[in-house]
Amino acid sequence: MMQKIVLIGAGNVAQHLAPALSTQEGYEIEAVFSRHIARAAALCQKLPQSTKAQSHLDFNQSKADLFILAVTDDALAEVAQRLITPPEALIVHTSGTRPMSVLSALAQPKGVFYPLQTFSVGKKVDFSEVPFCIEAARKTDEMRLVRLAKKLSKRVYLVDSEQRKSLHLAAVFANNFSNHLFGIAEEILQKANLSFELLHPLLKETAEKASNMSPTEAQTGPARRQDQEVIKKQLDLLQEKPHWQMLYKMLSEMIQEKYKG
Amino acid sequence: MMQKIVLIGAGNVAQHLAPALSTQEGYEIEAVFSRHIARAAALCQKLPQSTKAQSHLDFNQSKADLFILAVTDDALAEVAQRLITPPEALIVHTSGTRPMSVLSALAQPKGVFYPLQTFSVGKKVDFSEVPFCIEAARKTDEMRLVRLAKKLSKRVYLVDSEQRKSLHLAAVFANNFSNHLFGIAEEILQKANLSFELLHPLLKETAEKASNMSPTEAQTGPARRQDQEVIKKQLDLLQEKPHWQMLYKMLSEMIQEKYKG
Repeated sequence: MMQKIVLIGAGNVAQHLAPALSTQEGYEIEAVFSRHIARAAALCQKLPQSTKAQSHLDFNQSKADLFILAVTDDALAEVAQRLITPPEALIVHTSGTRPMSVLSALAQPKGVFYPLQTFSVGKKVDFSEVPFCIEAARKTDEMRLVRLAKKLSKRVYLVDSEQRKSLHLAAVFANNFSNHLFGIAEEILQKANLSFELLHPLLKETAEKASNMSPTEAQTGPARRQDQEVIKKQLDLLQEKPHWQMLYKMLSEMIQEKYKG
Repeated sequence: MMQKIVLIGAGNVAQHLAPALSTQEGYEIEAVFSRHIARAAALCQKLPQSTKAQSHLDFNQSKADLFILAVTDDALAEVAQRLITPPEALIVHTSGTRPMSVLSALAQPKGVFYPLQTFSVGKKVDFSEVPFCIEAARKTDEMRLVRLAKKLSKRVYLVDSEQRKSLHLAAVFANNFSNHLFGIAEEILQKANLSFELLHPLLKETAEKASNMSPTEAQTGPARRQDQEVIKKQLDLLQEKPHWQMLYKMLSEMIQEKYKG
């Protein structure tokens, strides 16, 4: 039997998720909601089935039995409060930062369907490699969400709200913060008239090594070698950038401490 | 005409470089030096040609016209001082942290042949993707080194000693420090009974996005969104790890500052 889905949101996550969902056999996106109807309509047009764009949250007449809330974290609680759905529909959100209880205003069965990836407009994501982190209040809903996630991806995990907090924190270190370090590297190269391209293979290898070995084994560099002379010289190079210098010092000390003796 | 190379060193870089060099048509590794003759011998045995292991630095009788010093940065100056080669041989080092002038004790023509990658024993490196950074005192030597580098790799750059300092500093941020952040992420997950595998696809995508777009465009996350609420919650999660907490705070503030307004 065809399962009908309503997608609440037409932003970054929804734009990546909708085409992936709507091409799965047995699943159909009935409607896409956005406060901005044009945005919802634009997303609907990209989908292979006929999907309705809607700018209000009353889905009382809907035939859908799964509502995926892919709105910004801040809007989540408020949207959930205003959402009207059939009484037995399963309502899930896609947020890494919010617990399942953010949906507690709803009487319906609840869950979380969190794709752990960094989504950017215009950069296509291979969903088969995206870890889906599933949580549900009822076992039957958990199984349903796992089944759907497995259609999209090879990597499906059960992760409760407590664990998801840690997971999101870890992702901030692994993605957001390291990307910021890449940005510092880019600026350092620009100043020396060198292209950031020079570092592309190193970025790739850094990710591969941390995955094939482990970050602890993969660590190299002056701090890992306790090479105080290079550390001092590099700190001198950063004299005009006191924030970078402080960051360099802190990270080097943490690495030296980790690998001492 | 066959070009003969002597490789000084049998460590990490030499072990990766030697097999790549010795399989290039027109090039032959005549000898490998290591203070530990067994280490040099072990490396020579892996090479397709017959290569001599040698534990002293007198190469007066050598037919080689290129000497590649792939020793540790600290040993470089001293080894260069003790090295005896034919008077017209070109002497290069492979260090990212040392200027060409570290070889100034030598009367011979000098250069740098620096493969910018993180090498670990047991992890094979695809040299065709490794950027080679070339420098030489004489233009003819520069051309010679570029020719050799192009046999090994698609990515060959002219980088002088001043630029190489910045390049190495940038690489420390991009590789060493971000790998340390991956290590923190790993520990956070372990404590939550989650596998670091969950983050493998994110690490890969982080590197790809920073390369396909630019790190500045690729930035996402709570600090990028100026999401003070999530930042505060994540800082609370780090209460038992004051160093990580301090690092989280510093990096978030730097990102918030970069993207404000």
